[in-house]
Amino acid sequence: MTAITRDQCVELDRASPFAQSRARFVLPEGCIYMNGNSLGPLSDAARKRMAGAVDSEWGKGLIRSWNTAGWYDLPVRLGDKIARLVGAGEGEVVVTDSTSVNLFKVAAAAAALRPGRTKIISEKGNFPTDLYVLDGVSRFMEGGRRLVTYDRAEVIDAIDEDTAVVVLTHVHYVTAEMFDMAAVTKRAHDVGALIVWDLSHSVGAVEVQLNAANADFAVGCGYKYLNGGPGAPAFVFVANRHLADVRQPLSGWFGHAQPFAFVDDYTPAANIRRMMTGTPPVLSASALEAAVDLFAGVDMKALRAQSVRMSELFITLCEQRCAGFGLQLASPRDAVLRGSHVSLAHPDGYAIMQALIARGVIGDFRAPHFIRFGFTPLYLTCAEVWDAVETLQDIMATKAYAQPEFTKRLAVT
Amino acid sequence: MTAITRDQCVELDRASPFAQSRARFVLPEGCIYMNGNSLGPLSDAARKRMAGAVDSEWGKGLIRSWNTAGWYDLPVRLGDKIARLVGAGEGEVVVTDSTSVNLFKVAAAAAALRPGRTKIISEKGNFPTDLYVLDGVSRFMEGGRRLVTYDRAEVIDAIDEDTAVVVLTHVHYVTAEMFDMAAVTKRAHDVGALIVWDLSHSVGAVEVQLNAANADFAVGCGYKYLNGGPGAPAFVFVANRHLADVRQPLSGWFGHAQPFAFVDDYTPAANIRRMMTGTPPVLSASALEAAVDLFAGVDMKALRAQSVRMSELFITLCEQRCAGFGLQLASPRDAVLRGSHVSLAHPDGYAIMQALIARGVIGDFRAPHFIRFGFTPLYLTCAEVWDAVETLQDIMATKAYAQPEFTKRLAVT
Repeated sequence: MTAITRDQCVELDRASPFAQSRARFVLPEGCIYMNGNSLGPLSDAARKRMAGAVDSEWGKGLIRSWNTAGWYDLPVRLGDKIARLVGAGEGEVVVTDSTSVNLFKVAAAAAALRPGRTKIISEKGNFPTDLYVLDGVSRFMEGGRRLVTYDRAEVIDAIDEDTAVVVLTHVHYVTAEMFDMAAVTKRAHDVGALIVWDLSHSVGAVEVQLNAANADFAVGCGYKYLNGGPGAPAFVFVANRHLADVRQPLSGWFGHAQPFAFVDDYTPAANIRRMMTGTPPVLSASALEAAVDLFAGVDMKALRAQSVRMSELFITLCEQRCAGFGLQLASPRDAVLRGSHVSLAHPDGYAIMQALIARGVIGDFRAPHFIRFGFTPLYLTCAEVWDAVETLQDIMATKAYAQPEFTKRLAVT
Repeated sequence: MTAITRDQCVELDRASPFAQSRARFVLPEGCIYMNGNSLGPLSDAARKRMAGAVDSEWGKGLIRSWNTAGWYDLPVRLGDKIARLVGAGEGEVVVTDSTSVNLFKVAAAAAALRPGRTKIISEKGNFPTDLYVLDGVSRFMEGGRRLVTYDRAEVIDAIDEDTAVVVLTHVHYVTAEMFDMAAVTKRAHDVGALIVWDLSHSVGAVEVQLNAANADFAVGCGYKYLNGGPGAPAFVFVANRHLADVRQPLSGWFGHAQPFAFVDDYTPAANIRRMMTGTPPVLSASALEAAVDLFAGVDMKALRAQSVRMSELFITLCEQRCAGFGLQLASPRDAVLRGSHVSLAHPDGYAIMQALIARGVIGDFRAPHFIRFGFTPLYLTCAEVWDAVETLQDIMATKAYAQPEFTKRLAVT
């Protein structure tokens, strides 16, 4: 194969339908940001919105802003905007709490809809918090539920008549392997089980069609591809057909039918608000809304196509220029099976990523030996992908990573 | 009693140890803010910190800020600062999630420490979310737990040998009645029960001595007297003696002993981090930290004394100037039994509060007929209290509240 040149990459960028989008993001000089799969960058819109939420809504409006600035409606209004990105309908998504907390709600609620069935099934090596939360559900929930995990190759076949709920992550956080949502959902339904999809590494990056797939429940993250800011609130999806029957354990006042009636007995809201618990994180949710609004004119099919173009480019360039350095592709070679990031395995992965970061190429490391690179057409360019591989090639060729400054572990890795 | 004059109030303000503190807060012109018990105001420190967290930490530092900007340490570092305000020790408090979510964690964790006991006891008319959350714990938790509520006068005597956990709010959200924390805690311990204190209407306003009272668990709110901003994260306290044994149901990756080891099995952190669940809300927690830092030099005993001075002034002025208007004091007349807000009952309470707000006196309304006024020495003055009662007197004397614009209900009341 002919070597891909940087000029060709610049041409690809010119042809990108997202060529104008990058200017909306605030990216530091000299930084190639390939970690949108972990923490999306700041946008001018989110910055302005946060300043307005702080100065005007909180500072001037004070408590009145619950009514005048739309704070009360924010979680559902924003949920509806996210719904469009994941193939959900109006009133099926609400923004609240963290992904972990929301997963607890839906896993417990789903299990309660399948009394008598004891198994909660998930994948070994799923994103750890999913397994930890399901462990918590199993330990605390009445009815003798237990979490059973299987290797990825076996998890689908393991879904059986004793399975209450299947919890899977649509795009795997390390490998970016992508489940066939419709097929797996059908398999669960065929034996009477319910399914919960974790969309944390999907939403805003790949096409998701929850209702077309007949999904039951989903959760997802606000601070990755949605660019909502560090610790942005998460979202939760409940298919409309389940809404009336769903009772979630974290019954708090913002999930009440009449939160401001201040009555002693809990009656869940008739709508998606019943998935809420406490007072919503207004400031963080405001930044997230501004960030999600940047997707308003975006065709998710076109975004996905550009993401695939970039990840293919990255893998091909690595094959062309980084062969022989011991870097193994840990993601599917077939783009159809892959989400919007690519992982490489290397025994010195940690130090290699530190060396890359020191040169302005920001991806991240995942234990024990994976380095991850995210592809985000809204602000990443093909020329940057080319430059990133150039830097990787140099670091590998010169073993620049084998320095104490790069091997020393940081608190958050 | 001689009528209190506005000049006397101005004198009181001059003598206040907090006379200089008000300048640190950003309050709108022409507004007397007596709702710090519901949503504390913006401070210059919180505004600057939020701008820095957005522009510098998120915008420039991006994912690196987990290490370089101290994001990872923030929940515990901030917890330690709040610990000082509630008489807790280092490592006993962490900032995470909402008050409701944290209450679910500690109530379930406490109940699990008392296997075989079925009752979770609380007060009728407690802040609704407390009752709703405990209802959720009872419904979902294995072991046949049930929530039993009693009238305030009976709740203490109802604690018995079958009681696993007692959950009480230290300062009542409507009446501001304050429990004797040490006495009630002792009563619970005498029969082998554990106690959870909700400090939402206490922290930052009244003296709280969790460890001196031998309290087991507590939760509290970040957006009321702590001035952390709308939907600021909450905190949770676990007495050091319980920490090693506590298992909470919302076991997420940030509560894991090694969150970045990415192993499948959950092992709780050895320290207070085990009360965390998902990724912390970094931006909101940053604003809260700046707000809490404003308490750094504050003597809580002096703050409480000034708050009492103000609420006494308010009640006395109401007695002198608003008698005969049908306003009933719904809070204890004895300041020792009262928190840092005062409630008045009136059949037209809703409209009266709307009329007050229209004239710049911002308190709030609580169903069915209470109007609340918060006393916050860090930014409220005695002269403002005088002016507020003057406005109330005029509204009542002229029945100015009986207008359609004031009786029409808003979404959030």
